[in-house]
Amino acid sequence: MSASPFDHPFLSGLLGDEETRGLVGLEAELAAMLRFEAALARAEAEERVIPAAAAAAIEDLCGAFRADVAALNLGAARDGVVVPDLVRQLRAGLAEPHRAHLHFGATSQDVVDTALVLRLKELAARFDARLAEIDTALAGLERDFGGNALMGRTRMQDAVPITAGDRIAAWRQPLARHRARLAELAPRLFVLQFGGAVGTLDKLGEKGPEVARRLAGLLDLAAPQRPWHTARDGIVEFGGWLALVTGSLGKMGQDIALMAQNALGDIRLAGGGGSSAIPHKENPVGAEVLVALARYNAALAGALAGAMVHEQERSGAAWTLEWLVLPQMLAATGAALGTAGRLIGQIRSIGAQEDG
Amino acid sequence: MSASPFDHPFLSGLLGDEETRGLVGLEAELAAMLRFEAALARAEAEERVIPAAAAAAIEDLCGAFRADVAALNLGAARDGVVVPDLVRQLRAGLAEPHRAHLHFGATSQDVVDTALVLRLKELAARFDARLAEIDTALAGLERDFGGNALMGRTRMQDAVPITAGDRIAAWRQPLARHRARLAELAPRLFVLQFGGAVGTLDKLGEKGPEVARRLAGLLDLAAPQRPWHTARDGIVEFGGWLALVTGSLGKMGQDIALMAQNALGDIRLAGGGGSSAIPHKENPVGAEVLVALARYNAALAGALAGAMVHEQERSGAAWTLEWLVLPQMLAATGAALGTAGRLIGQIRSIGAQEDG
Amino acid sequence: MSASPFDHPFLSGLLGDEETRGLVGLEAELAAMLRFEAALARAEAEERVIPAAAAAAIEDLCGAFRADVAALNLGAARDGVVVPDLVRQLRAGLAEPHRAHLHFGATSQDVVDTALVLRLKELAARFDARLAEIDTALAGLERDFGGNALMGRTRMQDAVPITAGDRIAAWRQPLARHRARLAELAPRLFVLQFGGAVGTLDKLGEKGPEVARRLAGLLDLAAPQRPWHTARDGIVEFGGWLALVTGSLGKMGQDIALMAQNALGDIRLAGGGGSSAIPHKENPVGAEVLVALARYNAALAGALAGAMVHEQERSGAAWTLEWLVLPQMLAATGAALGTAGRLIGQIRSIGAQEDG
Amino acid sequence: MSASPFDHPFLSGLLGDEETRGLVGLEAELAAMLRFEAALARAEAEERVIPAAAAAAIEDLCGAFRADVAALNLGAARDGVVVPDLVRQLRAGLAEPHRAHLHFGATSQDVVDTALVLRLKELAARFDARLAEIDTALAGLERDFGGNALMGRTRMQDAVPITAGDRIAAWRQPLARHRARLAELAPRLFVLQFGGAVGTLDKLGEKGPEVARRLAGLLDLAAPQRPWHTARDGIVEFGGWLALVTGSLGKMGQDIALMAQNALGDIRLAGGGGSSAIPHKENPVGAEVLVALARYNAALAGALAGAMVHEQERSGAAWTLEWLVLPQMLAATGAALGTAGRLIGQIRSIGAQEDG
Repeated sequence: MSASPFDHPFLSGLLGDEETRGLVGLEAELAAMLRFEAALARAEAEERVIPAAAAAAIEDLCGAFRADVAALNLGAARDGVVVPDLVRQLRAGLAEPHRAHLHFGATSQDVVDTALVLRLKELAARFDARLAEIDTALAGLERDFGGNALMGRTRMQDAVPITAGDRIAAWRQPLARHRARLAELAPRLFVLQFGGAVGTLDKLGEKGPEVARRLAGLLDLAAPQRPWHTARDGIVEFGGWLALVTGSLGKMGQDIALMAQNALGDIRLAGGGGSSAIPHKENPVGAEVLVALARYNAALAGALAGAMVHEQERSGAAWTLEWLVLPQMLAATGAALGTAGRLIGQIRSIGAQEDG
Repeated sequence: MSASPFDHPFLSGLLGDEETRGLVGLEAELAAMLRFEAALARAEAEERVIPAAAAAAIEDLCGAFRADVAALNLGAARDGVVVPDLVRQLRAGLAEPHRAHLHFGATSQDVVDTALVLRLKELAARFDARLAEIDTALAGLERDFGGNALMGRTRMQDAVPITAGDRIAAWRQPLARHRARLAELAPRLFVLQFGGAVGTLDKLGEKGPEVARRLAGLLDLAAPQRPWHTARDGIVEFGGWLALVTGSLGKMGQDIALMAQNALGDIRLAGGGGSSAIPHKENPVGAEVLVALARYNAALAGALAGAMVHEQERSGAAWTLEWLVLPQMLAATGAALGTAGRLIGQIRSIGAQEDG
Repeated sequence: MSASPFDHPFLSGLLGDEETRGLVGLEAELAAMLRFEAALARAEAEERVIPAAAAAAIEDLCGAFRADVAALNLGAARDGVVVPDLVRQLRAGLAEPHRAHLHFGATSQDVVDTALVLRLKELAARFDARLAEIDTALAGLERDFGGNALMGRTRMQDAVPITAGDRIAAWRQPLARHRARLAELAPRLFVLQFGGAVGTLDKLGEKGPEVARRLAGLLDLAAPQRPWHTARDGIVEFGGWLALVTGSLGKMGQDIALMAQNALGDIRLAGGGGSSAIPHKENPVGAEVLVALARYNAALAGALAGAMVHEQERSGAAWTLEWLVLPQMLAATGAALGTAGRLIGQIRSIGAQEDG
Repeated sequence: MSASPFDHPFLSGLLGDEETRGLVGLEAELAAMLRFEAALARAEAEERVIPAAAAAAIEDLCGAFRADVAALNLGAARDGVVVPDLVRQLRAGLAEPHRAHLHFGATSQDVVDTALVLRLKELAARFDARLAEIDTALAGLERDFGGNALMGRTRMQDAVPITAGDRIAAWRQPLARHRARLAELAPRLFVLQFGGAVGTLDKLGEKGPEVARRLAGLLDLAAPQRPWHTARDGIVEFGGWLALVTGSLGKMGQDIALMAQNALGDIRLAGGGGSSAIPHKENPVGAEVLVALARYNAALAGALAGAMVHEQERSGAAWTLEWLVLPQMLAATGAALGTAGRLIGQIRSIGAQEDG
């Protein structure tokens, strides 16, 4: 169907974001899971938990492996998670002596959660860069039109005059804070998940902590104090951050939609959207999309926070709920960043030039 | 990426629903939009708003038309809605004298909203049928195991004994109500949207109401008292219904997950999900999925209700928000119905047989 | 603190609603619970489950009883629900032979849920009446200003002219549907809850159904097919209805706030709110409040739907969640109805009179 | 009515929190607003914006002022915000020459928002301290019962054995992170709001920045780079933090409710709640309340994030929405912290002592 407009055959033109898709999609997901299994084998070999030859074979396999996606689909249906079938497929590609050494001591959630943060790390870096680009583009508007006159409006009523620069500065203001927030939450989010069946690394005995430390290093992630599989605060905090970003862009979008009202003419936009009924009309489509994405992400941030109530050592229900919500939030944030960048590029002027 | 697990290459095994996908997907969507344009032309010809020859040409075209989806994608990006480009493509397929008669008097929202309710109508019929099937399957469990003993539990504590039949009856109880609700809301939802640029059918003059009446009849939809493009209560009511359905199934799923606890053994399930760490384990995956889908749809029902705040004669922001939310809710409901059916089929027994 | 602006010492001026407060508040709540206990005793006496003398004593007591609210507060803290302490207080007011006959066969949830629907029934009647009043007031505006010219606006852009009557009709349109919905859901909502400890009326033996039938009759509620204590679809459906009502009023509020923009002047309002910084300003406060209440209720409708996932024969968690959400939604709806009525009363004109 | 259980005559026994009430309630709110006005006068006098004598009179007045709350209530109804009437009342208490110097250059939002962060600052300090207390209490449990055996459970199924210490550590783990997050967000949240009518301090001319700096210093708040009245990310970030806190406590509550199941007996609790139907039962009421509060705050965090879409220089709608949501979240968090502390105190043992 494409339940989601982010991937829809034609709505993705409006709401999709290619970069986000690339960094989160199937290829990236499988690559991150294979990277986990390969690094785990290496870390366990270095700690003499498994033979070096097994690790070498596993690393070779993971580097060249092509998954049978149809079988993964069936496996996910059966097991509720893709990893058991992925491990089965991988083991089928290994010579017998090595099979038991693959995925040794790990559990599905170790693979899925670590593969998630590996991708979130790349995505966060891109989101951060795009926030910087938007800030720079807004600085350009401030330079070009900052001195223009604008009516300051409160509660939808004319209040006292401001400048275009005042309003643009209000849009820019939270962006730097969002970047600072991301830097602060990064060490809590980009953390290896590795706990085995119930979070105690029970199969690794006393070597557990050291394998975890090496594994984190190989994956360029922080080593956890202890597994975080049932403590989803890092994920939910990041979801909150995504909603902050789209919320700030939504405020800018709402302002631009209001400024573009014909009776106000506070902004001139190039390339507005056309109508099937009124040919001459130019709609501030991007501005409206930013508002929609802000409201969408806001609601999903609430849904994601509800997924913190994990039962015991693993909640299938809460974990599945995360899978339903977080990818949508990433897609919405990517879409909002892309839309905001394009919308700013469409601005031809803001406010009225003072006579001079 | 497949932002949505419902369409994800492997997660759709767990969370996808083929039937829903078929009834809501691209093919169905385009078909419904073409059906609208063809029926509009016929209705307008019957009312002598456009020439009969134009209507015939338009109907022929719509019956055979293959859209250029890539161009629709670009069009949606530009216009915020797919219809202007679809109309452009269609007009390119018509001989000149007929072009202006296509889509005459209509606006994008007429096409998109009517195409939506056309598909919702089919989907609702299927959801209704699947509710009936689930109810029948539960009646079978009641017949087979209803007399078995079960501990009644309140606030997670043993209370007083009940029978398996008591609990199964509690699962069944809301299903008939959901079906009754659907029958009640149907006349409010399966209604033609036809208003032209601003809801006044301004281009059709005094013939507007009669064209609308004919068009509704051709599409087997109710004729509206007036266009509902800015009054989304029918859509939001249906979203609420979807959340009611998944909520009731989620309650059943939560019960089954609790009953499947080893220390209780209140239920025996065949074919539970496997673990990558503990081979012997059988997880009540379907039960957990029902809980996750219930919580997901609940949150989305709130998001959808937020989309009622439309501005003036059309809100791009609120409308786009609907597109982000409603398809997900349909997919989640289809997934929950499918999962519930399979889960009930996995039940081998409930409760303890009384000694005889 | 008054966590809620609806009851806040000064914010309740803006957001409170006296009528809602009266129908839902402490006095009404205790009265409804006492009404349940008295009717239960009478029904049980009529079915010879308890002595007639006990029923008479219980009815007398309930008619004159003044609760020790401080003790109820402590009891709620201890038991998670107020009923055990209320029953304790009531029993202390009865002569010994009658004590065990009070609340016989019932459980806390029977009292709380039935007392809830008793009050919801009165409240729904008032909400319905207020919807009718608003519709009438809007019809008055339509009569007075319906022919005035207004620019039709889509996606925040001027489209084609409409009349003030077109826009007012769009506001009115959903109100009648909301009233129809309420009539449809009423038989599902205004239903006795009576199930005893686990919903099986285990203490009443074969007399359970007949006591339930009589009790429902005495309370002027529908008799349930079976207890609905774990099937919250009726409550959640009503919550959805509340959000539909506030959503439609929020759309009207959003329109009025936009129309009141100085550059548009599409509406003239008397008695707008003042500013502490700009003395001459008149803010469309009521219009903004309607938008806020719509968005608030929308989010809460999602939260309420999440409370459908009840565990087993009673979920303390899901039930408590309802208590956190539903009263707020009632208050918000009462506030929105009150605000809408006052706001319509402030409208001095809509649109521009055509020259003639 | 007490729309909110947090303030309800008897439900507040279960869900209220005295400390939160004290720090956020009417007295604290008025005191914070008066503190703002007094400090503003002092700052303006120091910058020679107003006469020193006026500042002295204003400070004296604010120190002794008793508001007419009924008039504030009427004022809030009229103006949508309490400040215009508060200023009116204050001016009435000043000798004529000083009246215009009160509130000079400020607007309502400066008072309300700054008074909010002043109270949030105290409340955050208390929440932080209570998190530390809970962590210490959990450390005590870890010390007492950490070595006891517990079955590790994933997806509601027995997996492999763990210790009570493993589970307690999972509860403790996020608490330190929450405290770190609070320290990080503090400099973004505890910031003076001071912008005048539209955020430009237009009445203060070039002295604006210096008055703001002094005012922030007097209030022990950070001085803003620029007013944040339309950039609500600090507030929404804090709301997200509140949901993280209640989410982590909700996970603990869910675990405890599951552990308290009779068939498991993983935990022994003193003083569970009683039932009106089954005298002997002891319900894990506090554990359930934690789950309810987690889900409640999660949904409200989404609603709060939706309030980021401010229009132009002040959104009455979005600001009012915050007032509806944030106080509830504070109350819910206070209630969860209190409940968690009491619940931990009720734990008599966790897990099974290993045979020696």
